[in-house]
Amino acid sequence: MGAGLFVSLDGIDGTGKSTQCRYLCEWLRGQGRDVVEAVDPGGTPLGQEIRQILLAGKYDLDSRCEALLFMASRAQLVATVIRSAMERGAVVVCDRFLLANVVYQGHAGGLNVEQLWTVGDLSTGGLQPTRTYVLDLPVELARQRRGRTADRIEKRGEEYHERVRQGYLLEARRQPNVRVIDASGDVESVQAVLRADVAELLP
Amino acid sequence: MGAGLFVSLDGIDGTGKSTQCRYLCEWLRGQGRDVVEAVDPGGTPLGQEIRQILLAGKYDLDSRCEALLFMASRAQLVATVIRSAMERGAVVVCDRFLLANVVYQGHAGGLNVEQLWTVGDLSTGGLQPTRTYVLDLPVELARQRRGRTADRIEKRGEEYHERVRQGYLLEARRQPNVRVIDASGDVESVQAVLRADVAELLP
Repeated sequence: MGAGLFVSLDGIDGTGKSTQCRYLCEWLRGQGRDVVEAVDPGGTPLGQEIRQILLAGKYDLDSRCEALLFMASRAQLVATVIRSAMERGAVVVCDRFLLANVVYQGHAGGLNVEQLWTVGDLSTGGLQPTRTYVLDLPVELARQRRGRTADRIEKRGEEYHERVRQGYLLEARRQPNVRVIDASGDVESVQAVLRADVAELLP
Repeated sequence: MGAGLFVSLDGIDGTGKSTQCRYLCEWLRGQGRDVVEAVDPGGTPLGQEIRQILLAGKYDLDSRCEALLFMASRAQLVATVIRSAMERGAVVVCDRFLLANVVYQGHAGGLNVEQLWTVGDLSTGGLQPTRTYVLDLPVELARQRRGRTADRIEKRGEEYHERVRQGYLLEARRQPNVRVIDASGDVESVQAVLRADVAELLP
């Protein structure tokens, strides 16, 4: 898989994932690293089209269909962006990855969690991030921080998002590559924790 | 699953599947049956959009992504069309189903066949046709009969289509619900074989 590094940031909406991804990439680029900033779902032209289907609410999506569309988008992202970046030794920072699919559609959505990991294995061809950082925040605090119009998934109730949060925490205990970061501090202090850990993983 | 019947027709392109589906549905309707004619991929508004992505050649689709898009389309078809039809006791006749995915992307396309059956299980929620009819024809004869502009998948070479044909024949030996029908005869004689078998399955 080449000499690259692949990390992903995950967690419930409103924990500051996207901001932390951007700052992490800026810091890595400042060190002269070849950095690829990816987003899942999305991240490819096809992924953008699938993301629109998933978030726009145009169709009354079956939960299995929804999970499989996320998986399809990720397969294209791995095949056309992440694999080649890893092979040339780049650092890939991905905003969400397979874990989100397992947690949202499995732990919170009621689909079989083990089956989702198996489907994920087909989707990624077995590629997992070296490290996944779960930014953790109480649901109510995350909702307050979000401060923008909610999309189709964000609109689901507090109970749903609590199941998502607990799913992340449970998978973090089961998966050796997942690390939970307390996201209740300010952007700089969370970023400092992230950078310290990524620094140890850099090739 | 209610008192309905679910059969699918499958096989390489050019074997006359769609024509046989139509005639079978006409015959069943003529007997006063509640018949639902479905098509996979497609068969729902979302499925139509996915079918366009799959066949139009707009994107350079990764094979895993392609397989997962077929799976997503099928999940929506099962959830919004087939399950409700079965529950009210209808006869569902589907032009292709999961077997096609296993054969085209697995046996012919190189993805893991067992993994595809597992992903298929998530896609369908475990629903399989009571009977799948594989219309079988030598590849060269099927190509001659097709007689229209080839889509992205049909454009693949003869060797690919031969692997597809052999995949169907192999799965027919492994799956108890799959029956091979020689499609080299005229439309009426193939239809007669189909009707005789379906007649025995009707509730």
